[in-house]
Amino acid sequence: MAAEAPVNAAVGNGVPPPPFELPYPEKAETITSNVLKLANLVPNERFKFITKNLLTHLHQFVSETRCSSVSSYHQLADINPACISITTEEWMTAIQFLTRTGQTCSPIRQEFILFSDVLGVSALVDALNNPAVNGATESSVLGPFFTEDAPDVAEGGSIASEGKGDYMYVEGRILSTDGTPIPNAIIETWETDGHGNYDVQYAGREKADCRGRLRSGPDGKYTYRAVVPVAYPIPGDGPVGELLVALGRHNMRPNHLHLMVEAPGHQKLVTSLYPEGDEWLASDAVFGVKKSLVVPLKEVNDDEEAKKRGFPKGGSFKLLTRDIVLVPTEESKRAREDFAVHRAKNAAAAL
Amino acid sequence: MAAEAPVNAAVGNGVPPPPFELPYPEKAETITSNVLKLANLVPNERFKFITKNLLTHLHQFVSETRCSSVSSYHQLADINPACISITTEEWMTAIQFLTRTGQTCSPIRQEFILFSDVLGVSALVDALNNPAVNGATESSVLGPFFTEDAPDVAEGGSIASEGKGDYMYVEGRILSTDGTPIPNAIIETWETDGHGNYDVQYAGREKADCRGRLRSGPDGKYTYRAVVPVAYPIPGDGPVGELLVALGRHNMRPNHLHLMVEAPGHQKLVTSLYPEGDEWLASDAVFGVKKSLVVPLKEVNDDEEAKKRGFPKGGSFKLLTRDIVLVPTEESKRAREDFAVHRAKNAAAAL
Repeated sequence: MAAEAPVNAAVGNGVPPPPFELPYPEKAETITSNVLKLANLVPNERFKFITKNLLTHLHQFVSETRCSSVSSYHQLADINPACISITTEEWMTAIQFLTRTGQTCSPIRQEFILFSDVLGVSALVDALNNPAVNGATESSVLGPFFTEDAPDVAEGGSIASEGKGDYMYVEGRILSTDGTPIPNAIIETWETDGHGNYDVQYAGREKADCRGRLRSGPDGKYTYRAVVPVAYPIPGDGPVGELLVALGRHNMRPNHLHLMVEAPGHQKLVTSLYPEGDEWLASDAVFGVKKSLVVPLKEVNDDEEAKKRGFPKGGSFKLLTRDIVLVPTEESKRAREDFAVHRAKNAAAAL
Repeated sequence: MAAEAPVNAAVGNGVPPPPFELPYPEKAETITSNVLKLANLVPNERFKFITKNLLTHLHQFVSETRCSSVSSYHQLADINPACISITTEEWMTAIQFLTRTGQTCSPIRQEFILFSDVLGVSALVDALNNPAVNGATESSVLGPFFTEDAPDVAEGGSIASEGKGDYMYVEGRILSTDGTPIPNAIIETWETDGHGNYDVQYAGREKADCRGRLRSGPDGKYTYRAVVPVAYPIPGDGPVGELLVALGRHNMRPNHLHLMVEAPGHQKLVTSLYPEGDEWLASDAVFGVKKSLVVPLKEVNDDEEAKKRGFPKGGSFKLLTRDIVLVPTEESKRAREDFAVHRAKNAAAAL
């Protein structure tokens, strides 16, 4: 039908066939080696490294069996679940899980970050990119509940409206690693109420509650009133929640107070303080708790003192006292670089 | 505020804290070992194996550097892109890619399968689960264009309406591995038109075209008229299409004719035949081509013969002759089991 030759034949993305020979991908090993050879075409060197690494691990994950001994298929299937590579049905289950995870995302929900969180990957990326600096306050996960609309709160003022939970008084200083107080640092702080809910989790939210923006005083001091935060579950109604149940893992985060601190000349700090004694501390579903961030809450049973500090009903309150130590920008940069070099040297030594 | 204690405190999924001690996840190594320890809680043994394997590879992928020597950060960042583990920005880019991939899926589009396809994982899973059986026709990827509404086509009938492309005549026999002809096998076949498009890719599709359902004759023979299929690109307008451009890879599939053959007592076969000479064969964007599936197209320049075979305009046509060999169900099952045992023994030997 030369007379009716296609006039609109499908055209591709303009990339030519690879400029090297590829064997036909007949079997597992050839498929893996072909896709790795094609990765040599990646123009950006960093992206090439990441792509090859991803492909290597992904293909290994799919192919891998870990049998110490086997003589029959019966042993494979019935006795040792580690003897068979990923099956067609298992891969389709994975595809469906990833699809649902993407489709559960919305402008106010990020299920893939939650997936990354419960696999420990978010915490791992944070640990690799934000190494601890001696004496400085360590970082912790940001979480999905920060908002931009926290009200300005004066020294000693309250971030929570009355009746939102048990009284907690927070005080400390913002310092630099050399001990110098940092005045005028901006402190964003947010937390759950006494029901374990953030304000944004209430349908009728009209204004921010249990969150505030403060500035440290001339001596670096900050003080504010809050409520004792309460442990809470991460969302359980999506694919990640279902996954945790299938994994036999709880979905709780220990109670904590978020702090995000910025000051000129210093590395911005995103962290949380975790009151000691919570049963979910070490097994936090998102791997956020570092030992140095676990803090005592002092019980102050003194009606007069409670009223003096501004708690309308008096009675008792919990006292959280904690200095926050920021890292000068240059020192922070150097620490990251030293850490990267240290890790690279270790990797070289292991080769 | 004991008097106003929470009445509706957030509750989790009912799983208690783990029944073993966990250190606080202070640093990268502890995060990885904690999440692996928690994987011991997975109740299903197979799922436990897969989960641990996934976590191991995923955490390695994120952490890994591959430096042979390094003495300064300058070397790390500027000279060797393989010296730094995944950065926070890179991980967010990955999260956003996965989210967009999920959100590009719809009832008529599966972008995550496409992602799996271009990474070679779909072909790998197929190769691991459908080992070749000596003498039998090998499998190839199903692809997203099979539909249930193909019309029944009689022996020698046409699956394509007139004018859809260059004439192609397809003929062969359906055989069992011992050479016995298989009568009454059901053959589903579909292909692109001469523009490289499947019928479902046209907005105004009213009925099936370039697809048909046949049955083999008493001697196992099948014959039908079709058009010469044309190479085409996989969807380029989503995240996977963009990824291929970033990877420096084309997005073309070589031209091919799909066949899905079912017969009682035999393993269902999903395959394609790939006319030789196509420039995209070995680098097929989805790794579908096996050498045994590449077929010659014989040019028949004989007006009389063309008309005799039923091509209305006569002239010339291409002739595709190919026997399809199915595997008896028991033989197929045995082959899978032998392959799994073989792979497991290799894995054991490598330990």
